[in-house]
Order: sequence, then structure tokens, then C-alpha cells
Amino acid sequence: MEKVCVGITQFRVEKSKKENLEKAEYWIGRAVQSGAAIVVLPEMFVCPYELQYFPLFAETFPQGEALTLLARLAKKHRLYLVGGSIPELCNGRFYNSSFIFDPQGELVARHRKIHLFDVELERLEFKESRVFSSGTSPTLFDTPWGKIGVMICYDVRFPELSRCYALKGATMIVVPAAFNHVTGPLHWTLTFRARALDNQVFTVGASPAPNPESHYRAYGHSIIVNPWGQVIREMGEEEGFMVENLDLGEVERVRKALPLLQHRREDVYAIFQ
Amino acid sequence: MEKVCVGITQFRVEKSKKENLEKAEYWIGRAVQSGAAIVVLPEMFVCPYELQYFPLFAETFPQGEALTLLARLAKKHRLYLVGGSIPELCNGRFYNSSFIFDPQGELVARHRKIHLFDVELERLEFKESRVFSSGTSPTLFDTPWGKIGVMICYDVRFPELSRCYALKGATMIVVPAAFNHVTGPLHWTLTFRARALDNQVFTVGASPAPNPESHYRAYGHSIIVNPWGQVIREMGEEEGFMVENLDLGEVERVRKALPLLQHRREDVYAIFQ
Repeated sequence: MEKVCVGITQFRVEKSKKENLEKAEYWIGRAVQSGAAIVVLPEMFVCPYELQYFPLFAETFPQGEALTLLARLAKKHRLYLVGGSIPELCNGRFYNSSFIFDPQGELVARHRKIHLFDVELERLEFKESRVFSSGTSPTLFDTPWGKIGVMICYDVRFPELSRCYALKGATMIVVPAAFNHVTGPLHWTLTFRARALDNQVFTVGASPAPNPESHYRAYGHSIIVNPWGQVIREMGEEEGFMVENLDLGEVERVRKALPLLQHRREDVYAIFQ
Repeated sequence: MEKVCVGITQFRVEKSKKENLEKAEYWIGRAVQSGAAIVVLPEMFVCPYELQYFPLFAETFPQGEALTLLARLAKKHRLYLVGGSIPELCNGRFYNSSFIFDPQGELVARHRKIHLFDVELERLEFKESRVFSSGTSPTLFDTPWGKIGVMICYDVRFPELSRCYALKGATMIVVPAAFNHVTGPLHWTLTFRARALDNQVFTVGASPAPNPESHYRAYGHSIIVNPWGQVIREMGEEEGFMVENLDLGEVERVRKALPLLQHRREDVYAIFQ
């Protein structure tokens, strides 16, 4: 199966978990109606992206309203559902985690954000590590269309992780994310294009729509890039969804024409390790 | 010394070595008149980029008209001169090599292209490895303004090498290159921006101007990108030069605001090695 319809939902995250879950259910339904077999939600789709909310909105697998809903919707729509991310509480620690469910409603993977977003930009300071512990494993899962690698937002900044995924056979990398109004215009499109081009994979980035009432203004611009590094679909700042039919055969064709992965020189890079 | 004026020369490569050397001398002089303290020439500035010419134009250090001229001009103008690349003959093997001379006219580094350009694009087939052997070492050199990493063209496609340079202290990466009319429009700017952004360094790409009479049509568009991934200067397809004052202090400021190199997770990447 070389072709797969991928959907992204992009909505404004509110202060009410109930409202966010209603939005998730609505927009997932719309993407499914348009043919999506894989749907990707944004980072922190359930909870405002502010430190004080993370513990309040946290869930512990398999309990919790968000996790229960995701499992139910995956099964109902017979979907691979990449559940954006939510604050996870496990053994007394909080994580920024993405739970991925298969068409039977079973958990197939869980990615805990590896690189925590601790920055001091001129117009934006944020220290995720004040609340979250970081993940310690890369995350890949199998689908009938091939392997998919998972990252959360800031993870995408690190070329090493995408490279790991490509070398382990991923043909697509999905990234629930929430870039902001500072880094978004500068780096969002560039980074998704670079990871796609260098690794010759599809990259799929799902962002919340910016909410003018929230402290942290998400960038929006959910995006799909092909293995040539070309943007094939990008949203604006609106609430909504998009779907796109991806021809995964393109990965092999690009890699044959321009065999980047084969031409890597581990022997040389090792000199510097 | 935090500020340095960097110059790039971009000229059409002809079939006559003599003519190419005259052009190099002329455009280096122009860049120096405009204040350049480091000048970067394009890949294969001395020789048409076609397999059959490489052995005919090859030189063996320290002999050869091109190498002699580069050493002389570096000394005359008191320059760091990154001598693009030329075909090098050494112990019976050919390499695509960049020779770098200091203001005393001494060789400070030699980079042999590590990743050879062997591709089968729809509108372009090229097999550098039919003539060239590949380099086996990364190349960094010291200047009063900090460490500079060197790559040749296709080397820039591999994020591992730029990362090596950044981790070893480079604040600038110079890349004599000759992308073409197929890959140039798709990937030139994207790749130079991505390497700069991910590693928070300046990237400097020097290309020949396209020569309508040559078989391999270079892309031109010589480029300088800052550590935020922003293009600060880019040429078109014309013959000429450009100079730009780079504030290397920007590297430290960017890395403080967004500490990407510190946030790397070697422990996680190692799981996949």
C-alpha cells in the first residue's frame, strides 16, 4: 500500500479540557469524512501551553478523558490516530507525551518529548523542564504503509533524531508541535523542509491554531512536506483541518535518484566522535 | 576580533585554465578592494565541471599554476584565501580538493571532497567517482576570527558533517560549490539555511556563475546565511563578487537564546547507533 491519506487537525486550544476534546472529536470526524486513514493532532491539544496548566490537565494511561477519547475515536473511525500531545503523569513525573492508537483502539506507541523547550528568546522565555521530565527513547511505529517516526515540537530541531528515524526505515515523520510567533515565522517551514529533504521522508507537522486569548501564541501553519523538501500543503492561522494523499513510493524514487542515505560516510563522521 | 569581512567571487568557468586564473585574480582583487579579509572561490573554478577535464587540469601541491597563484595572491593581499576547488593529483589518485592559504601565503588546510556527487536525476546524471577518490577527513582551520569548517558542494547535503564542525567549535562553514539548474532551485538556499540554523553558524556558499556554453550549468546564487538561518546576502546568476561584514558575536548570542547544541541528547541518539 503506497498511498495513504493523512489528515491534520488545527484548532485553538481553550482553557476547558472538555471544550478541547469536543473540538478534537469534531475535527477528527471532518478529516475522516475527507478520507484520512492517519490523523495527527497538535501538541498540547488538550491543555493551554503554560507551565501551571500542565499538572492540572495531566492524565495517566490508560485512564483519563483525553486518552479514553483518543482510543475510542481511533477504533470508531478505524484510524491510526497520533494523539498530538498531553501532559502525562507516570510514577510521580510529568511528561509531554504523544499517545498513538491503531484502528482497533489499541495503543501502538507512546512518545515522550525528548528535547525539552528551555529557551530565553528576546520576546519569549519558556522552561518546560520546570515541570516535565524528558523522554529517553526514539519512537517509531509500524503501519500498513510503512514505518512512521514521532517527535514532539522542539525534537524536530535536532537533525540527529530525524536521521535515526530515516536509518531505521521511516518514510514519514509526524510532529505534533506548537512553534510560536517568534520562532514560527523564522524556522517552522525551513525546519520541516530540511528534515524532509535531508532524510528523504515525508514530514507532517500539526500545530494548534493561534488563540488570541492565550499567553503562548501558537504559530499554526500545519504543514506537509514531500521527500524533495517541497511543501505540498500548508495551512494558515485558521481553525480547521487538511488532508493530503501521500504517495509513499516517492520516497524510494527520490532515494534512487539522489542516494543521500547510501552516500553517508560514517567512517569520516566517526573521526570526530 | 568579532567582525570579519568575507568575500565571495562568482565567475563563469571557461575551458581555458589561463582565462579562469585571470578571472580569479581579478575578482579576488575586487573583493579585497571592498575590504574582504577572507575570500572564498567556487568549486572547480579552474576547470569545467566535466569528468574528462578533471585529469587534464589536475595539479599536484605545491606545483601548478592555480596553486602557485593562490599562494601568491593570499600573501600579496594578506588574505585567508579558500581556493574553491581544483582537481588534485596525489600518488596516482585524483581528488576534488580545496587548498586554503593564509596571509603569509602558506597552506593552512586542504579539504578533499568527502561525499562524491554520484546521482541519476531525471535531467542530470553525474558520477564524480569515475574520476575522483574521496576525502577521508573533516577539515577545520583556525583564523583570528575563530574556527572555520570546509566542505565542497555535495558535502553540504550531509547534516552529520556540519554538526561535527559546530561541535568542534566552528562559527563559520565555507562551501565552494556548484549546484546545478536541477538541484539549485530546489535545494541550494534551503540547505545553506538549514545548516546555519541547526548548527548556529554562518554558512558561506561560493558558486560559479552559470556558463551558457558549458555542459554542466552551475546555479550561481552564491550565498551567506547567518546563525538564525536568515539569508543575509545572495547573488543572482551574474559574474561578480560580494562582500559582507559578519559579526561572529552573533553565534554566541543565538546559542545563548536557543541553546540547541547544549540540548542535544547523545544518550538517546546512541540507542540507534
